[in-house]
Amino acid sequence: MRRPRKHSVPVEHTRRYLEPGPVVLLSTAHRGERGIMTLGWYMMLGYDLVGTYLWQANRSHALAKRSRECVINLPTDALLDTVVGIGNCSGREGDKFERFGLTAHAATDVGAPLIAECHANFECRLHETRISADYPLFVWRVIRAHVAPRPVWPRTVHYRGDGRFMIAGPTRSRRALFRPDMLDN
Amino acid sequence: MRRPRKHSVPVEHTRRYLEPGPVVLLSTAHRGERGIMTLGWYMMLGYDLVGTYLWQANRSHALAKRSRECVINLPTDALLDTVVGIGNCSGREGDKFERFGLTAHAATDVGAPLIAECHANFECRLHETRISADYPLFVWRVIRAHVAPRPVWPRTVHYRGDGRFMIAGPTRSRRALFRPDMLDN
Repeated sequence: MRRPRKHSVPVEHTRRYLEPGPVVLLSTAHRGERGIMTLGWYMMLGYDLVGTYLWQANRSHALAKRSRECVINLPTDALLDTVVGIGNCSGREGDKFERFGLTAHAATDVGAPLIAECHANFECRLHETRISADYPLFVWRVIRAHVAPRPVWPRTVHYRGDGRFMIAGPTRSRRALFRPDMLDN
Repeated sequence: MRRPRKHSVPVEHTRRYLEPGPVVLLSTAHRGERGIMTLGWYMMLGYDLVGTYLWQANRSHALAKRSRECVINLPTDALLDTVVGIGNCSGREGDKFERFGLTAHAATDVGAPLIAECHANFECRLHETRISADYPLFVWRVIRAHVAPRPVWPRTVHYRGDGRFMIAGPTRSRRALFRPDMLDN
């Protein structure tokens, strides 16, 4: 599997990758344990803030809560079967990096590993949790962003439910219709 | 502009339309005023719960807060220029239904209007707000879902930032790789 070389980009560019709504892989680590989960329930909550739904039954919930750090990794269609596999097994069945042949690279600022095969990696520190009986919301501050310069428009995967995924299609510019102050981010 | 005929579907199907991360149009109404805003910052927070970021400067923030109701409308690529236009003007400049030639249909359970030209409409009642200095999060309970049966895979639009949109591409099934209990929703 290809491991694209990446550049640092301003954390304010995070939304360019996450706002289209692709499935991501969230990696965590705490005291020698590490985990990966497939995540579709998240949103931008600021130019450097991301909210994620981390169900208490997932081992990643505990690793994220204890370490207060994570990495949000952006897979593309070449990793679709891996994304599905990770979402359909538990970390209790063994280390997912080994099981799925993924490469863990050391992050710059957090203990959670970067998944080298992904198109982009966003290092995050916990900003706050808003856990209620209804939903467990973790809010993360993105502190470092690593992005592969090519392809410019990665073919991300988007979950349609019921085992089906939409693959990112063509990109269309509507810059000419935007107010200049709406184009900064 | 086409106004597709829609069927009622269980509210638990909402995620099939919103989880892929398309841009949506949020419509609101309160005491004779109505509004539409373009929204990309939202997430599923339960099978019938959706969190939305509604910036205080948007007129929709006040209409949503006062009425405690909204409709989340799902546009497709035929409406892309309308989506951009709505996101780049203010309701203070006039009624957006009139300005953009959109049709307001009466909702079943809420006062906010359905946008008839959209592929799907989700009627919502406010579940709670989590407004802090950092972000204004409204959490909605979907109480009724209207969806056009065709096309089966609507060509939704997804914001890449900087005036560019990704148009939904092909759908791929990976049902065979899912655990049966992961396929219910």
